[in-house]
Amino acid sequence: MPAIQSVRWSPDARGVRIIDQRLLPNEFIERDLTTLGEVCGAIQTLSVRGAPAIGICGAMGLCVVMTDQAKLSRDEFLAHARSAAHSIASTRPTAVNLSWALERVLRRGERTEGESAVVLRAMRDEATAILEEDRAMCQRIGEAGASLIDNGARVLTHCNAGALATGGIGTALAPVYVAASEGRNVCVLATETRPLLQGSRLTAWELTRAGIPVTVITDSAAAARMRAGEVDLCIVGADRVVANGDVANKVGTYSLAVVAHHHRIPFYVAMPSSTIDPTLASGSDITIEERDPLEVSTLGDRRVTAEHAAVGNAAFDVTPAELITAFITDQGMVLPPYHFE
Amino acid sequence: MPAIQSVRWSPDARGVRIIDQRLLPNEFIERDLTTLGEVCGAIQTLSVRGAPAIGICGAMGLCVVMTDQAKLSRDEFLAHARSAAHSIASTRPTAVNLSWALERVLRRGERTEGESAVVLRAMRDEATAILEEDRAMCQRIGEAGASLIDNGARVLTHCNAGALATGGIGTALAPVYVAASEGRNVCVLATETRPLLQGSRLTAWELTRAGIPVTVITDSAAAARMRAGEVDLCIVGADRVVANGDVANKVGTYSLAVVAHHHRIPFYVAMPSSTIDPTLASGSDITIEERDPLEVSTLGDRRVTAEHAAVGNAAFDVTPAELITAFITDQGMVLPPYHFE
Repeated sequence: MPAIQSVRWSPDARGVRIIDQRLLPNEFIERDLTTLGEVCGAIQTLSVRGAPAIGICGAMGLCVVMTDQAKLSRDEFLAHARSAAHSIASTRPTAVNLSWALERVLRRGERTEGESAVVLRAMRDEATAILEEDRAMCQRIGEAGASLIDNGARVLTHCNAGALATGGIGTALAPVYVAASEGRNVCVLATETRPLLQGSRLTAWELTRAGIPVTVITDSAAAARMRAGEVDLCIVGADRVVANGDVANKVGTYSLAVVAHHHRIPFYVAMPSSTIDPTLASGSDITIEERDPLEVSTLGDRRVTAEHAAVGNAAFDVTPAELITAFITDQGMVLPPYHFE
Repeated sequence: MPAIQSVRWSPDARGVRIIDQRLLPNEFIERDLTTLGEVCGAIQTLSVRGAPAIGICGAMGLCVVMTDQAKLSRDEFLAHARSAAHSIASTRPTAVNLSWALERVLRRGERTEGESAVVLRAMRDEATAILEEDRAMCQRIGEAGASLIDNGARVLTHCNAGALATGGIGTALAPVYVAASEGRNVCVLATETRPLLQGSRLTAWELTRAGIPVTVITDSAAAARMRAGEVDLCIVGADRVVANGDVANKVGTYSLAVVAHHHRIPFYVAMPSSTIDPTLASGSDITIEERDPLEVSTLGDRRVTAEHAAVGNAAFDVTPAELITAFITDQGMVLPPYHFE
């Protein structure tokens, strides 16, 4: 199991302790966020990333920010909390988990009778519950998927859907951690995941810390590895799963799914049920975020793409349901035909 | 047509004028190589790259290095030339074109009657012939493939098999340049080509200089572009083509071929006939060069991969013949079934 915790209360409970993921893998620095500016900054700059981890950090961060305000009247306190939550939510406006977690903490506060200190305590309990629930959900995903991983299995994954992205042992990596904890040898082939290299920087780091062998390859090298018989199964995470089972995930997921299909290698998507968006019928309804082209055209401060060339940077792609062998969820395996509600 | 020439004689013919490709796309610097150290250094450091361009640079470089030696006796001159050729060849021992071009210049010298100055002149003529033949070969590839490119075509390419890699208008990009010169609108989708980013750095640069619209994307984003109907055909180069039509080329080529096949998009390989290696029966006989893992695990001076993670960096992959719609060669189009001799 990974001996890391991406987000938690600081020992004195006055801060949110996060792993600063921007510095990985070169420096392992944990930072305590105590002010509104620090909480917003950590989320905005991707010091904390991964939808579940962002939600947890936002929920706990809101409580930390309100700790000094417990002397306000109940009404003032709640108004202040709503304003702070708004500031935190607006750092990543498209992150559904963030606004969901903040709303949950706020509502708990509003429904709690009593003075500000009592309200604050209830909000803290709610934030802790969000963390604990996420941790349990990861564990259940891991248990649901672990039986797919035989002794000696070689698992290919993309991006980082591991402990760093969640409050627990991750989603895509959860079955790997559980299989390893059950004593099976498992090794991981991690695609580096251009442009932001989450596979190379983060997945490789958390797996090596957990003592699980990992090999990093460029994204486009995965196909030759599959052809050489070096991949037994693929497990990726999901940003959104729609009613018919189409999956939006980090760009490159679709390419891997096609190539896995060509080689008859099983392709699994691991996710908590909260990732399901039944309001959309199919993947064509999903809006794909186009991110800053500089992520592709520069390395550090250095420009690597010709000046007058256009640059495309779609951050996600859609994998159609027919390429997905099964979903690994906190409620067990889901096999085709898919119909999520 | 590209207004660049990757390798040529300097105006006073005392040097080999190259485009320093290491500095692209940020600086367009041409350098004149006049000493053995400069010629070897330029090839070794990838200031000159692309199999044809390396061969031309080596052949012309050998002549330039021998220019000051024309007062030696004929025997001394030839011995000196052979020694210099050996030094140049050993900078890229696996580059077949380099040793082939050097050997051709040496043999021409040895077969030429007369004093050193006469021998040198013959060697220079041979080096010029190698350049001119390559230029003509590129042109013929371009003409053979141009009819595949309709007005408004969107062509996907990988790595750089363009003017920068050859003495002429390239191999994979030659049909694009010819189609454009014939007045058709064509735009190119260039995969960045990890780890060394030749697509982003070089292909995008030479196409924009030639006024051809180009969009750079990450390697793993190609699949989603194909699914969206944004690619009409793929054209890539080849490092080696064996008897049954299997192709070794820059890593990622195989992945693109599988994905193109899945979307029923034609996948062409452009190459001079000299790329054919009929001594190998199939792709499984090709040895794939594993390059320095630091190309993947570092960006500039910065480490991006966790310290204890393994890193794979196979520089090439093999695309099986059945995924190749046709070969575009200097002797015309070659359709399946393939049997190269």
